[in-house]
Amino acid sequence: MSEDKRPFILVCNDDGIFSNGIKALAEVSAEFGDVIIVAPDREQSAVGHAVTITTPLRANKLKVADHFEGLAVNGTPADCVKLAHDQLLDRKPDLVVSGINHGSNAGINILYSGTVSAATEGAILGYKAIAVSCTDYSEEADLTGAMEAARRVIGFALTNDIPRGVTINVNAPAGAFKGVKWARMADSRYVEEYEGRVDPFNRSYYWLTGRFELLDEGEDADIKVLEDGFAAVTPIQYDLTAYDLLKKIGTTDL
Amino acid sequence: MSEDKRPFILVCNDDGIFSNGIKALAEVSAEFGDVIIVAPDREQSAVGHAVTITTPLRANKLKVADHFEGLAVNGTPADCVKLAHDQLLDRKPDLVVSGINHGSNAGINILYSGTVSAATEGAILGYKAIAVSCTDYSEEADLTGAMEAARRVIGFALTNDIPRGVTINVNAPAGAFKGVKWARMADSRYVEEYEGRVDPFNRSYYWLTGRFELLDEGEDADIKVLEDGFAAVTPIQYDLTAYDLLKKIGTTDL
Repeated sequence: MSEDKRPFILVCNDDGIFSNGIKALAEVSAEFGDVIIVAPDREQSAVGHAVTITTPLRANKLKVADHFEGLAVNGTPADCVKLAHDQLLDRKPDLVVSGINHGSNAGINILYSGTVSAATEGAILGYKAIAVSCTDYSEEADLTGAMEAARRVIGFALTNDIPRGVTINVNAPAGAFKGVKWARMADSRYVEEYEGRVDPFNRSYYWLTGRFELLDEGEDADIKVLEDGFAAVTPIQYDLTAYDLLKKIGTTDL
Repeated sequence: MSEDKRPFILVCNDDGIFSNGIKALAEVSAEFGDVIIVAPDREQSAVGHAVTITTPLRANKLKVADHFEGLAVNGTPADCVKLAHDQLLDRKPDLVVSGINHGSNAGINILYSGTVSAATEGAILGYKAIAVSCTDYSEEADLTGAMEAARRVIGFALTNDIPRGVTINVNAPAGAFKGVKWARMADSRYVEEYEGRVDPFNRSYYWLTGRFELLDEGEDADIKVLEDGFAAVTPIQYDLTAYDLLKKIGTTDL
């Protein structure tokens, strides 16, 4: 394959351009093609699909791990992909990858995830898109398994058609895994979420805490697949229409 | 119906607790039951499903339009619903409503919308949930139609089963409408999004701008329904799994 036919891969994340996870994902991506990193200049976890509309964005060039070109953006993960697509890249990427996130983005966490939103933004713009996360929150997490899962899914995405509107969401256990399985998003939620405290001026304030609750018994639910020691790969779509329900109630008068 | 059997309705939004839209939605909600307003203390547009995790939240009591009790929270729309559910309310709401947003949340805008995310957070927590938006961005928009659409959908939601995981997303034209129609989320995106500028120190910066592009020809697409002069009502789900694709590719080895 000649040099200019190598796939061009845009790498983003939500932990920020200096995280270990994005370096790991850039390494894996570089096995498949040319890599450009465009990522937030600081941690942007739990920002969901937030987009910056009231302040201007800037992109500063820097080296990531000495051998990758990077652009650090003062915005959200979705901002990074939008701005890369529209202004920063001189050719269109063949693939947008986001991660490796430190902490899983499975079940309901997908909705809050900046990592996933960056990939989803790629899908909205018409690119193949993959989000990759590892269950271990630590910055020193063993990303071996997540890198291998990313490797397989990037290979799959570059050689298969992915329908418009779909993002591939990958979660891997820390360290080794038993295999890689397709999965669906587990129904889940958080319970007992806030800890109420009183400040030195006797005013109440609340810290988000809470316990994750799995509401899903399915063997094919992403969280269950992870618990069983496998990496979970879930195709997700940004068309949120509840078609089954629409078919059923869509004839009711309003 | 005895006083304590009146439905209890939690009202939220993303334009902030002092916007005209939230007052309008509280008025409509009060026709059906007791109302509590818990909303951001300032505008929180385009925050998507962001959640505040690194700073504490506070809730300050105030009067909204003289006759509604309100709690202003220094967080995102999703924060408001989570905190209301967990700490601020002394009884569980029968319905969570969010809006009336100044500006439509149809098509791809649903993903970026704080208004919708507040309602979706309600659905995650197990409540019936409705988001309401009006196409007119102006704070002085004529909300008559949006209020009437909200009235019909609130009536529908309080008297019908809504499956767990579903949020009802309502968009109405400004002023009068021809009717209320069920619809699906239109495929759409933004093109030519950023305007590049140079600051007084000769450094580049970028403002988000861009033109909305409809990629959907369907008569039942929410944006088309709105353009035809109707209010559009779309059931949306937070399970993002692309089931059709999963069935097709889920047997492939990875």
